[in-house]
Amino acid sequence: MTELSVIGKNTLRIDALDKVTGKAKYVIDVMLPGMLYGKMLRSPHPHARIINIDTSRAARLAGVKAVITGRDISPERLGFIRDRTVLAIDRVRFIGEPVAAVAAVTRELAEEAAGLIRVDYEPLPAVFDPEEAMKPNPAAVIHPELLKYALHPLPFPPYRFEPDRPNILIHRHVEHGDVEQGFKESDLVLEDRFSAAPMQHCLMEPHNCVAQMGADGILTVWTTTYWAHWFKAEVSRVMGLPPSRVRVISLYIGGNFGGRTTPHLGLTAALLALKTQQPVKMAFTREEVFIDSASREPMVLYIKDGVKKDGTLVAREMKAIINAGAYSSLIVQIARSSVFATVGVYRMPHFKFDAYAVATNEPPYGPFIGFGGSHIVWAVENHMDMLAEKLEMDPLEMRRRNLLKEADEDVCGQINHSTGARECLDKMAGWIEWGTTPPLPSGSWKVGKGVAQGCRQTIAGTTSVAAVKVHEDGAIEVRHSAHEVGQGCNTTMAQIAAEEFGATVDMVKVVFTDTAITPFEFGTVSMRSTFNTGNAVQLACQDAKRQLFALASAKLGVPAEGLDIRDNRIYVKGVPERGLRVPELFTPLGYLVKGGELVGNGVFTCPISSEDINTGQGKRVVAYLSHGANAAEVAVNTETGEVKLLRLGGCYDMGRPINPKACEAMIQMGLAIGTGTALTEEMVVREGRIVNPNFMDYKAPMAMDMPSTDRVAYQFAPAPHREGPYGAKGFAENTPVPVAPAIGNAVYHAIGVRIKDLPITKEKILAALAAKAGRASAP
Amino acid sequence: MTELSVIGKNTLRIDALDKVTGKAKYVIDVMLPGMLYGKMLRSPHPHARIINIDTSRAARLAGVKAVITGRDISPERLGFIRDRTVLAIDRVRFIGEPVAAVAAVTRELAEEAAGLIRVDYEPLPAVFDPEEAMKPNPAAVIHPELLKYALHPLPFPPYRFEPDRPNILIHRHVEHGDVEQGFKESDLVLEDRFSAAPMQHCLMEPHNCVAQMGADGILTVWTTTYWAHWFKAEVSRVMGLPPSRVRVISLYIGGNFGGRTTPHLGLTAALLALKTQQPVKMAFTREEVFIDSASREPMVLYIKDGVKKDGTLVAREMKAIINAGAYSSLIVQIARSSVFATVGVYRMPHFKFDAYAVATNEPPYGPFIGFGGSHIVWAVENHMDMLAEKLEMDPLEMRRRNLLKEADEDVCGQINHSTGARECLDKMAGWIEWGTTPPLPSGSWKVGKGVAQGCRQTIAGTTSVAAVKVHEDGAIEVRHSAHEVGQGCNTTMAQIAAEEFGATVDMVKVVFTDTAITPFEFGTVSMRSTFNTGNAVQLACQDAKRQLFALASAKLGVPAEGLDIRDNRIYVKGVPERGLRVPELFTPLGYLVKGGELVGNGVFTCPISSEDINTGQGKRVVAYLSHGANAAEVAVNTETGEVKLLRLGGCYDMGRPINPKACEAMIQMGLAIGTGTALTEEMVVREGRIVNPNFMDYKAPMAMDMPSTDRVAYQFAPAPHREGPYGAKGFAENTPVPVAPAIGNAVYHAIGVRIKDLPITKEKILAALAAKAGRASAP
Repeated sequence: MTELSVIGKNTLRIDALDKVTGKAKYVIDVMLPGMLYGKMLRSPHPHARIINIDTSRAARLAGVKAVITGRDISPERLGFIRDRTVLAIDRVRFIGEPVAAVAAVTRELAEEAAGLIRVDYEPLPAVFDPEEAMKPNPAAVIHPELLKYALHPLPFPPYRFEPDRPNILIHRHVEHGDVEQGFKESDLVLEDRFSAAPMQHCLMEPHNCVAQMGADGILTVWTTTYWAHWFKAEVSRVMGLPPSRVRVISLYIGGNFGGRTTPHLGLTAALLALKTQQPVKMAFTREEVFIDSASREPMVLYIKDGVKKDGTLVAREMKAIINAGAYSSLIVQIARSSVFATVGVYRMPHFKFDAYAVATNEPPYGPFIGFGGSHIVWAVENHMDMLAEKLEMDPLEMRRRNLLKEADEDVCGQINHSTGARECLDKMAGWIEWGTTPPLPSGSWKVGKGVAQGCRQTIAGTTSVAAVKVHEDGAIEVRHSAHEVGQGCNTTMAQIAAEEFGATVDMVKVVFTDTAITPFEFGTVSMRSTFNTGNAVQLACQDAKRQLFALASAKLGVPAEGLDIRDNRIYVKGVPERGLRVPELFTPLGYLVKGGELVGNGVFTCPISSEDINTGQGKRVVAYLSHGANAAEVAVNTETGEVKLLRLGGCYDMGRPINPKACEAMIQMGLAIGTGTALTEEMVVREGRIVNPNFMDYKAPMAMDMPSTDRVAYQFAPAPHREGPYGAKGFAENTPVPVAPAIGNAVYHAIGVRIKDLPITKEKILAALAAKAGRASAP
Repeated sequence: MTELSVIGKNTLRIDALDKVTGKAKYVIDVMLPGMLYGKMLRSPHPHARIINIDTSRAARLAGVKAVITGRDISPERLGFIRDRTVLAIDRVRFIGEPVAAVAAVTRELAEEAAGLIRVDYEPLPAVFDPEEAMKPNPAAVIHPELLKYALHPLPFPPYRFEPDRPNILIHRHVEHGDVEQGFKESDLVLEDRFSAAPMQHCLMEPHNCVAQMGADGILTVWTTTYWAHWFKAEVSRVMGLPPSRVRVISLYIGGNFGGRTTPHLGLTAALLALKTQQPVKMAFTREEVFIDSASREPMVLYIKDGVKKDGTLVAREMKAIINAGAYSSLIVQIARSSVFATVGVYRMPHFKFDAYAVATNEPPYGPFIGFGGSHIVWAVENHMDMLAEKLEMDPLEMRRRNLLKEADEDVCGQINHSTGARECLDKMAGWIEWGTTPPLPSGSWKVGKGVAQGCRQTIAGTTSVAAVKVHEDGAIEVRHSAHEVGQGCNTTMAQIAAEEFGATVDMVKVVFTDTAITPFEFGTVSMRSTFNTGNAVQLACQDAKRQLFALASAKLGVPAEGLDIRDNRIYVKGVPERGLRVPELFTPLGYLVKGGELVGNGVFTCPISSEDINTGQGKRVVAYLSHGANAAEVAVNTETGEVKLLRLGGCYDMGRPINPKACEAMIQMGLAIGTGTALTEEMVVREGRIVNPNFMDYKAPMAMDMPSTDRVAYQFAPAPHREGPYGAKGFAENTPVPVAPAIGNAVYHAIGVRIKDLPITKEKILAALAAKAGRASAP
């Protein structure tokens, strides 16, 4: 890789000072004169008809400025398959569904007023188990009108509906070869069932927003979204406002992890702002975040593999049953894309995959970092170890034999590129000293090691737009609409711009997303920002440089192609002493005689090819894959079921790391989320009610739960991508993906029992040990 | 003139609803969390050395966050000739000069703290009369270091200094022909002395600002400025911040009239914000506005005219002595440009003009609508009547004989264009029924009519930049940095954009000035906005249309030149049914596949030619002239001296009126200001102290002081300008210019005494009547 000045160097985050000094502004800091506070009233029933809503007592309370119900709002629907309204209309489908909202002069008054709204319900039968719900003639049909809903106009292939099984929101099918034939040709066929519990994103900043109808007829919404331009389009559509009359602003955002899919919150505030003509602030409580922010979907996975004696995978058949909860959010996209987590890793001559997103009366589930891939990899990577054991093979060797390599075609017809998979696995094997037995702790503590492999794809076909303004002093202003959710994207964009201009990062200012100022961006999702937004920023820089060089060319009498820029100075290549400073191109008052301002534009759309709806075949259906491997060493107490993480490492390919220190931070994040997935995190839902919607009862790992810094590894397997900015691609969303199976495999290695249902709790370990002992002591 | 759809039609102001509903936001409405309040401490001496400043007691007061004095700040100077610092350093030069400032958590605390600062002064001799001050060896030298000051880097010719007369800040000299020879050739030579009192702008919104140092290192100042980009450059220079680190925002502004020249206010707030790292709000009290916002300069005028018996002007010599007060602000520009008010109106074969801007220890004077021209016209138009009387000519006929016509060359070498002068005069003569005697009111009331002619020029050589963004729904967003000070410029720009796009005004959104978003603008001064900013907006629209047509051309298969746009639809000229709607050029998500956003740019720089420093000769030294005439009918009570305005009319040329209703409003404004100038307004300054710095003692005319609507006339003499947008040019600044002499001439016509020193008060009338009676009763 070429040596560069800024790219690839550890760079202090441009927001570091803001954050450590507490100066960083979040949406919750937006305070406007005359601002009201909004509050939702939520359903106590998992499924019920709304007979009547009496808002009169709430409306009479002094200080209450507006009360709205589903009757007052547009019936325009939200979500990928348009199955939800902003507030419930006529029917509620989960415990906690918003049925009404109030705006009042204080938060306390708003809460009091919400409590005064009387709703008469007629309870309906409910269904919670997706495997029950997906049957024909289920106990309850969640969306009787499903087939009438319009699909979201995203540039993706359509999905199958299942008219006879009305709770299946979508059915995704991928097929290649003939799995039945493959199983016949196999020496060993093994099948099993795995599952994963619902999880919460545990964002440090609960969802919040402020909406204000301006005197100029423009509705402004400050909100904690991860796709401001999408949200703008949604507000425009749902509220019937022209897009030019909607402005969406985001500031710093306290975490994302896929958890910012709550357009109904911003829309409720907007409706209240429109009705009251005053600014309205709304913020979820932590409990509301658990209930109504589309937590990670629980999933049931069936896997059946056929292998040759030498470990070669011949056939794989998988079925994924996704509990979508009451509303689909982006679940249909999860159903579509989770498959790539297995397709992208191993060669499989015969393959069949069916994913079903099933509506139930549980709270809505939705995107969570890994986007379904973590579940797939949980099943696959346990199963790889199980196959290896049956074949009496080293499980690493088993994986190595089947890994797809650079330029290989995968089972969907895509050519692998920028594949660091093998290097990740080998580095992790080296780091964990695979094959050596760790010293056994005393007593009932057993030690084991595990490794797992995984990948996550980035969505193709999406667009990022960036603009780069060069100021009269040469400062570079980057306008893009990726969101700074803590991942450091603004620093990445500053590095790209600095590198392009031969400048230092402090010459770059990055503007926070504001749809009135920063140009279109598909969204800060699917680890797109570095690759997609980064490309747009690079293109915009290059466009700005073209304009600068054209101006300088006229002044210097040198063709523009012969110019370059460094340290705010444009110079003749090869004759560095001949040149001019960028400010010399501007008038002393700071404008350009021609054009006024110097703004370069960049548009990047990741290519996409068509995908066969019946087989999932397509030449380019994802932007790229990011691979990774994890290694874990655990101690398991056979008396208490306790699992101690002794060591945990991750190695990932990220094309070219733009800011290594930031990449390490992303791995740190992934290891923590993966650890929670593996061991402790579970939203316990009983009859549709979340039993533990708070940080006392829901156990996300804290710093103390992770191995100490000398017992973790953050490793890179850079494999530059030909389309990435400076070869970079995203990788962070893959970081938690293989963690849980690495830990699960290590637990099995330690105590010889395999927990197939996440998380691996003490109770499950003790039960499994007991069952094993029972089996052992039986016949 | 071509028939247009929007231009030339009475158009509801786009800010009308905002203003009548109270939704319009002004800088004073900006409230930020943690905001402090700033307050200045001012000098009680007109001229003194600062011996010591003790801030310790103020600093100790709980709630006080910062105290700054001249010692704490940059010695960088403000003003056109760089003669003022933000706070006084070592010396004060007028009563009310800021010497220190504090920031505290409440306004009351800030005031209390300012009162606790102890300043020891050593009083110095002071000088107040400019005719005394301009002599060699004056009683006090206000700026001993004047000759060291650097000139402002404006694109104007330099001025003469007078090293032997140290209080002359600048001397402007214009000469053509030989006035002495001219006087010799004349049949009548007449000379006289006139003067005008200082006046206040009486802005409804006192000067205020909020400054905040952002976590991103960018200093933002919200302020009531009329040239945000200039102010940004000044903040950058004085505070040593790169221009890209300064952002200036203005919202609605409650009046301008030249009164927004207070950079030291915003800079003081900025310094306090920098020191405290908290937002700081500062607002002038009404008294501070009177003292420290550069009120209208008092002027003494000597005029000497030579004419032939038939009324032909042969020679004119004028001397203008401008009291600049303690600091020059824009006074040197006033000294330069006031001359055009006589040069532009009449043919004068021989001409000589000297203007002196003289520093005194009165409060600083500065720009006021008319910009010196009102004073010149006061002298000239009185004198024209006096000459006519001596020649026993009709004063209108005298004027008609000498008026410059279209294509005439004026005495500075400029060719007249877009001259409605004669039409204005004739229309006013018709309206006032010139030559008929009004019915005499009974008793001691005498009635008279008067007419006057005048012109005002617009500065040349300045630049406006505009950007026009076309939204995905076809909405047109205009970004310009002219300030909406109440004159309606945003509506004008919306009309221009609407006309260009074949749209209605409600399809246009105009963005308020924000240097981070809206492009460079020289300033909302010199009635530039319609002509200069309007041209930039028109060019930006045309650039945006070019881009739209290029995109549509590709879709329609028609050359771009063959396309036009109307009602958000691009169509083939001559085949209107063939076309497409603008939104069809965007993706459904609202961006362009190429370029991302559609933004057109426009830069307009009004041409300027060089000007001979010794003679003022130049082919194009002003952008254009705007002419006008006023007619007044007054009743004067010879017992009380009271003057009643019976009728008052104005007729002006504005090229082509873009919004006739708005033009009428501008005339209404001019008639009121002119009436105040003529009859009541005077800032009374005694020994450097303003005696009447409030609206109780300072008498600006109210609605009740103006004639009723059936006794006023708002008339137009449109003379399209070849360079103006749709032929339009500015005219509003000329509206008050000829009002006072029209009233003065009417008073003379009524009672036979001429008041030469503005305003024409009862006391002056009674004294003049008494003097006349005395003279009459004397030998």
